[in-house]
Amino acid sequence: MNSIFATIITIGDELLIGQVIDTNSAYIAQALNKIGITVKNRIAVGDDKQAIIDAMELASVHNNVIIMTGGLGPTADDITKPLLNEYFGGKLVIHQPTLNHITDLFLNKHKRPMIERNRKQAEVPDVCEVLFNETGTAPGMLFKKNNVLYFSLPGVPHEMRWLTDKYVIPAIQQSFSSPFIIHRTLLTAGIGESFLADLIADVESNLPSHIKLAYLPNFGMVRLRLTATGESENELNISVEQAFAKLKVAVADYLVTDLDEQMEVVVGKLLKERNQTVATAESCTGGYIGHLLSKHAGSSQFYTGGIISYDNRIKTEFLDVPETVLQTVGAVSQEAVEQMAKSVREKMKTDYGVSVSGIMGPSGQTDEKPLGMVWIGVANQEKVYSKVFYLRFDRLRNIEVTANQAINLLRLLIINKI
Amino acid sequence: MNSIFATIITIGDELLIGQVIDTNSAYIAQALNKIGITVKNRIAVGDDKQAIIDAMELASVHNNVIIMTGGLGPTADDITKPLLNEYFGGKLVIHQPTLNHITDLFLNKHKRPMIERNRKQAEVPDVCEVLFNETGTAPGMLFKKNNVLYFSLPGVPHEMRWLTDKYVIPAIQQSFSSPFIIHRTLLTAGIGESFLADLIADVESNLPSHIKLAYLPNFGMVRLRLTATGESENELNISVEQAFAKLKVAVADYLVTDLDEQMEVVVGKLLKERNQTVATAESCTGGYIGHLLSKHAGSSQFYTGGIISYDNRIKTEFLDVPETVLQTVGAVSQEAVEQMAKSVREKMKTDYGVSVSGIMGPSGQTDEKPLGMVWIGVANQEKVYSKVFYLRFDRLRNIEVTANQAINLLRLLIINKI
Repeated sequence: MNSIFATIITIGDELLIGQVIDTNSAYIAQALNKIGITVKNRIAVGDDKQAIIDAMELASVHNNVIIMTGGLGPTADDITKPLLNEYFGGKLVIHQPTLNHITDLFLNKHKRPMIERNRKQAEVPDVCEVLFNETGTAPGMLFKKNNVLYFSLPGVPHEMRWLTDKYVIPAIQQSFSSPFIIHRTLLTAGIGESFLADLIADVESNLPSHIKLAYLPNFGMVRLRLTATGESENELNISVEQAFAKLKVAVADYLVTDLDEQMEVVVGKLLKERNQTVATAESCTGGYIGHLLSKHAGSSQFYTGGIISYDNRIKTEFLDVPETVLQTVGAVSQEAVEQMAKSVREKMKTDYGVSVSGIMGPSGQTDEKPLGMVWIGVANQEKVYSKVFYLRFDRLRNIEVTANQAINLLRLLIINKI
Repeated sequence: MNSIFATIITIGDELLIGQVIDTNSAYIAQALNKIGITVKNRIAVGDDKQAIIDAMELASVHNNVIIMTGGLGPTADDITKPLLNEYFGGKLVIHQPTLNHITDLFLNKHKRPMIERNRKQAEVPDVCEVLFNETGTAPGMLFKKNNVLYFSLPGVPHEMRWLTDKYVIPAIQQSFSSPFIIHRTLLTAGIGESFLADLIADVESNLPSHIKLAYLPNFGMVRLRLTATGESENELNISVEQAFAKLKVAVADYLVTDLDEQMEVVVGKLLKERNQTVATAESCTGGYIGHLLSKHAGSSQFYTGGIISYDNRIKTEFLDVPETVLQTVGAVSQEAVEQMAKSVREKMKTDYGVSVSGIMGPSGQTDEKPLGMVWIGVANQEKVYSKVFYLRFDRLRNIEVTANQAINLLRLLIINKI
């Protein structure tokens, strides 16, 4: 059984001038990885005929699967479809089910007249297999040449995702059998990358050659990932489980989760298991903690709500932070966040309260309170705990790190570690 | 004057299995673009020596600038530095200023002992120019070979950004002169991509050959970008301004901004100009509108705060939505969002209130209220306006679109268009 290799080609000038961030590649890479396909590389090219052809030619030398996204929209800057038609020697014909679908979308859903441009989206090369797109107007396409599969998908993320799951993965699985790849990931908090590396040096140096270890630091926490590749699923499972068990023992004091999941998901699960709820009182994060807690399905079971007390007046009027606190120690203080966490918990009648107040930058610092200084508070019925952090990132990153650290403190309070 | 071409190579297994989303490339691409460098492509490769070398060899054929990020951390999965050392035929030596800096960071900032692994980060090939990294422990490196510049930067986003601005851009400008590239971007709202294309068909077909038009749909709105390339900055400015002026006239009814800026930045400016403030009352977006309004510097001038009324109880207790409304028409209703917008404005004493309540998925729908149904309300002292939307994305995307549409409604209220 040979390895099956794939290249992801993302198309669009916007990717080369940095106007949009490519999230499609990550989704496709994850999906391929799960079925044991190795993504050799990812290439982003502009809306440029020759650049697209060059990337395809290059990719087809070493890969069995080529997945292209973008360049299929209804407007004139999209050039992929005619190019593929020419490249694979077809002619453009109307795909009747797609035309019916587009017509129906316009008449019954959008309730707007359909124009020629929309009709043209139903045209496909007669040499491809059409991947019928229920979620939008541009169909996906599958071409086969010299035992290589070429998929072309629209760049709209939710459409691309739907087509990947519905057609791309099954078609690849049908065409190839590939070696098994197993990933096991754990998340640590409270220890830096270098110290973690020292802590697990023995485990790392004794890993069998078919298992690789990667460090993935983010938000002031480090994720560790083991990747095992092999031909026997059974043997692979056994060896990766053994290595992963040793790794977990080595990092036990700092272990957040042994699954590849985000901090807020870990905390959501803890709260749901305990039938408990949380409320947030956010100053400097401006709602981002609430967003993290509520972005996953099922969060209404544990997230009750919050007060965004961006202006100090809101801290006083809605969260009972005394004027004297604001005037003496200020809003970025232990006193302020402890009161905020307590108040929001009491007022929203939840089991826990989380609060933050800090200086996210790029300005607002004082002599005593540097940029990146942030106080985080957590409260339950019995106690209030608070901690100060000094962050050194830019504003948006400081917000993200603060929110993740706040949710981590909530986790520690829930499991009685603080 | 010839075009200067660049390739961005991002390194890390995590990029190929979809574990992280690459935001570095977009930043670098933007920075290069501003100084007239054309990014020909971007390549992502794994932590694999041969794959990195292949990418470098390939990139060096057609490009003058190669920027690599990632693979410079303190841990064993980072292999880039020894590879570059070997590739360019150097030997690793301690860079004293970097060692001093790392030592200082550990002793005085982190207040933790420094270990050998940290010391090794100060090692650099003796054939490179060291890009001293004030923002972290891993220095950047610049190699020169056959008139090609090779930059190697750490993958940590804020460090990569700092090094790009401080060293990479100036070094490129010093080495090459390049043609001018000018982008002009505008944002429209309230019109679909196909209809917009029809509206501007004349302008588009009459564009001079050195100006390209691109459609960039996002959040249910469409951004249009003109890109002009040429050798005379002056002529280029004149021709692109002429084309952009025509484009603006054609889309006048739907124009949000003629700058490349986000919706919330447009609204922030409008509020600051008027010395006005806004408060948010969020149900289904769970704090994301607050996050958008507060993520940019200077937002405390206009964003006062908000109530995240995720649980219905909070809608009643904090925002005076009558129990009877919740029991009859429900939380996802015109009545609920209008009360929420009014209440939050009054209670937080702001000029405007914005509210949302909807069904973001993947469950929670009823026969009358489908998935993706969302009510948005906006209020000022004189009036309350509300509108219902039917979104068809996944949960996270629905949240993002809702927040952007809510901020757009606020914009329309501020400028008296609703």
